[in-house]
Amino acid sequence: MPKQVDHRERRETIARALWRVVEQRGIAHASVREVAQEAGISHGAVQHYFATREEMLVFAMDFASEQTSRRVTEGVRELGDPPHPRDVLRVMLAEMLPLHPDARATSRMSAAYVLEALHDANIHTRARDGLAQGRDLVERIVRQAITDGHIGSDRDPATETNLLLALTGLTPLIELNVIEPHEALTAVDQHLDRLFTDKG
Amino acid sequence: MPKQVDHRERRETIARALWRVVEQRGIAHASVREVAQEAGISHGAVQHYFATREEMLVFAMDFASEQTSRRVTEGVRELGDPPHPRDVLRVMLAEMLPLHPDARATSRMSAAYVLEALHDANIHTRARDGLAQGRDLVERIVRQAITDGHIGSDRDPATETNLLLALTGLTPLIELNVIEPHEALTAVDQHLDRLFTDKG
Repeated sequence: MPKQVDHRERRETIARALWRVVEQRGIAHASVREVAQEAGISHGAVQHYFATREEMLVFAMDFASEQTSRRVTEGVRELGDPPHPRDVLRVMLAEMLPLHPDARATSRMSAAYVLEALHDANIHTRARDGLAQGRDLVERIVRQAITDGHIGSDRDPATETNLLLALTGLTPLIELNVIEPHEALTAVDQHLDRLFTDKG
Repeated sequence: MPKQVDHRERRETIARALWRVVEQRGIAHASVREVAQEAGISHGAVQHYFATREEMLVFAMDFASEQTSRRVTEGVRELGDPPHPRDVLRVMLAEMLPLHPDARATSRMSAAYVLEALHDANIHTRARDGLAQGRDLVERIVRQAITDGHIGSDRDPATETNLLLALTGLTPLIELNVIEPHEALTAVDQHLDRLFTDKG
């Protein structure tokens, strides 16, 4: 196996171990020591791949975003060609909510990362850039859907984008078992049905 | 000053110190030691008021919820009599978003508490009960507004309640400076305008 691939794989293994620590014990426990233990490798080995805890956290978050994107891409591939923008947004939103184990791991990582960003300037910049990039992607889909007549031209694309991203606010209701996953999806569908003039 | 009042006041002072620690450094730093230091009192004094870190956290969260309720009650008092349900919901949502320093402190406390709940069964139960209670309150307002003809009878009260609570999902966008507070309020108003058949 080429060295470069092996290096990447080891970093991903450590990132997944960090997700598990965050998911099961909280980000306060995401130290190099506890992550190394969870990954079943030595403290020194983790330090070989990540110079600092922050570097490890940043990689674990980037990897979580990549994995979410990958799941969205796979979900979109199963849609018609070209896919209806309503269905694309539904796949994106469903993968951002903690509705299955992988999505739950990345959702918890993401929630912890936002809180970590509030008292770490470097993480704040990275988290803001990541969220702004995701927001831009959603806004492009909304604008195109307005151009293509799927969403009424009276809708403001920026506000509609913010309302779509706000649906991730269903997360605490799901995580604390106040509502069932199917109720969260019903709410997402209701919102999308009212946004689109035609159905996906 | 009666002893009971003094006791309560000291607990609130400690709770506010805990909020500041959570807001500025993160919940990982919300130990009895760091909170005592922030409150400017001795470690032993904090232990006199709270037997454990968990007890301190639970009180700080209950106090945050109470303070949010108090702000909502004050905001609602300034509305017409009887207040329009749209305006009541707007006051509630605005106070749940981190749009001013007090709301930001309670919002961050709440976000950290949800993450803490994911790996602490006692906190999970309390956080779930608190959120379910808040959700019930919103659902009662929605049901009454449907009965009174402010919201169309074709709307499903449970789904509408979930969509209203989902608006707290604007929080990361505000906290990471991806959108401005006024853009968050525009989104909230858009949502409410579409929910109500008459305006508040």
